[in-house]
Amino acid sequence: MHNVEAVRWSPEGLGVRIIDQRLLPADYCERDLWDVDTVCEAIRSLAVRGAPAIGICGAMGLVASASAFRSEPIDLFRRQVRELGLRIRGARPTAVNLPWAIDRMLDRLDATSGNAQAIIDALHDEASAMLAEDRAMCRSIAEQGVSLIADGARVLTHCNAGALATTGMGTALAPIYLAVERGKKVEVLVGETRPLLQGSRLTAWELTRADIPVMVLTDSMVASLMRAGGIDLCLVGADRIAANGDVANKIGTYGIAVHARHHGLPFYVAAPASTLDARSASGDVIEIEQRSRDEVVRPFGAVVAPTEVGVWNPAFDVTPADLVTAIITDRGVFRGPFDFSGAERLPDWRG
Amino acid sequence: MHNVEAVRWSPEGLGVRIIDQRLLPADYCERDLWDVDTVCEAIRSLAVRGAPAIGICGAMGLVASASAFRSEPIDLFRRQVRELGLRIRGARPTAVNLPWAIDRMLDRLDATSGNAQAIIDALHDEASAMLAEDRAMCRSIAEQGVSLIADGARVLTHCNAGALATTGMGTALAPIYLAVERGKKVEVLVGETRPLLQGSRLTAWELTRADIPVMVLTDSMVASLMRAGGIDLCLVGADRIAANGDVANKIGTYGIAVHARHHGLPFYVAAPASTLDARSASGDVIEIEQRSRDEVVRPFGAVVAPTEVGVWNPAFDVTPADLVTAIITDRGVFRGPFDFSGAERLPDWRG
Repeated sequence: MHNVEAVRWSPEGLGVRIIDQRLLPADYCERDLWDVDTVCEAIRSLAVRGAPAIGICGAMGLVASASAFRSEPIDLFRRQVRELGLRIRGARPTAVNLPWAIDRMLDRLDATSGNAQAIIDALHDEASAMLAEDRAMCRSIAEQGVSLIADGARVLTHCNAGALATTGMGTALAPIYLAVERGKKVEVLVGETRPLLQGSRLTAWELTRADIPVMVLTDSMVASLMRAGGIDLCLVGADRIAANGDVANKIGTYGIAVHARHHGLPFYVAAPASTLDARSASGDVIEIEQRSRDEVVRPFGAVVAPTEVGVWNPAFDVTPADLVTAIITDRGVFRGPFDFSGAERLPDWRG
Repeated sequence: MHNVEAVRWSPEGLGVRIIDQRLLPADYCERDLWDVDTVCEAIRSLAVRGAPAIGICGAMGLVASASAFRSEPIDLFRRQVRELGLRIRGARPTAVNLPWAIDRMLDRLDATSGNAQAIIDALHDEASAMLAEDRAMCRSIAEQGVSLIADGARVLTHCNAGALATTGMGTALAPIYLAVERGKKVEVLVGETRPLLQGSRLTAWELTRADIPVMVLTDSMVASLMRAGGIDLCLVGADRIAANGDVANKIGTYGIAVHARHHGLPFYVAAPASTLDARSASGDVIEIEQRSRDEVVRPFGAVVAPTEVGVWNPAFDVTPADLVTAIITDRGVFRGPFDFSGAERLPDWRG
């Protein structure tokens, strides 16, 4: 089983303690975030990442940032909390979990009266509840999805949708952890996930720590491995799922889904119900974050392309629902044509 | 037009002058190869690369290596030349051009009598003829393929099948150079081509030098760019083409072919007729070179995966003929079901 805590309260007070994922696997380093700038920078720079984790980190980071203003007059304090929330909310655009978490915190702010300390206590309670819910959510995804992992399965995943991407046992990796816990033999294959290599750096790292066999390949090798019969199923996470079942996830996911279809392999998505976004009718309206050209042409500081070339660097892609075999959530497993109305307790679902 | 000479005779004598492609695009450095060890090492380490270029480099390298033995007794000298040839022939297993070129040199050896100097002169003539033929071959591929490149075309290529991969204007890039020479506007898209990044390092470099617009993306972004309508056709090289039209080429090519099929885009392969291998009935029998794990998990010396993980690193993949729209050779354009008997002057074709 994994032994990773990607996001938690700092033991020293109202800070957010994260594992700095930019340094893995070479260095393991924990950092505390105390104010809005370091919270936003940690999210933007992917020191903390994964749709569920950045949602919780944002909520906890709001508590940490707000506490510095506790001696302000109450009206100013409330306005300040709201502004801090909106700044954190905008740190990254694609994952729906971050705005979902911040909106929930601001709803709690609106529902709370009293002085600054009372508000901070309420926000701390709310963020702590979300932290606990996130851990339970991961476990629930594991339970929902474990039957899809046969003994001996060779599972392709992409990027990192594991313990490092959540505050619990992950989303896409959760059914794998549980299958192994129940005595099944599972091998994980993971594309390195250029440009930022979350597959080789993070997924390989956390699975190795949990003694689960993992093989790394470049993203360009996935199709060949499928053709060679080396993959039984695909299981990936999601950053946002539209009402029609279109899935926004790490760039490269769509290509894997096309390959899975070509080779007749099931393609599963695992995500918390908070990733379902009723306000996005389809994937076409999901804003895709464009990141810096240097991630592509200056990896690790190396010069790997002439300075004059154009670069395309979307952080995510959209996989149309018709390529998705099933979506595993903590509220049940959905199959196409997708209708998420069964997931009715979803905060955002009734939009 | 390109202004690159990837392989030529050294101005100082019977050495082989190459551009050391491991250092591009950061450094431009020419090196001379004088003996069998440096020739084999240059081919193995990809200092010189590209199926046509390593064939010619091998042939010229045989002349360079042999000349050190010219004062040996003639029987010993002939045996020595043969042994040097076999060593060079085995430097890399997948491209058929290298054994093809060495076999042709050894045939010339067998057909030549006289002293060591006479043999060296004959081998020098043969290698020089191959060099000239290779340049003409590139131009011929350009002429055969140029009509497939429409004005305004956005062409996806992979790896480097350009001037750097041949002694002329390239194979896959040749029709593009000629289209631009004839006044057409062409934009090239290229996946970086992990693990060794020949797309971003080499193709982007030589196209930039030729003032042809080029955009680099990670291999994992290709499918998304197709879905966004940003690619009109695919055009790649080949290291070996089986009798049934199956194509061995740089790892990642097969995945692109699957994506092209899914998006209804034409997928073209450009290669000299010497790449056709009648002895391989299908791609299944082509030996695929496996390369070092460090190319995947230690790029540029950076630690990007835990040391314990498994790694898969095939240098090539096989694209089945039914995904190939057409194969452009210097002897004509072939469409499936493939029958290469029209390419009858092929040295190896009647194998």
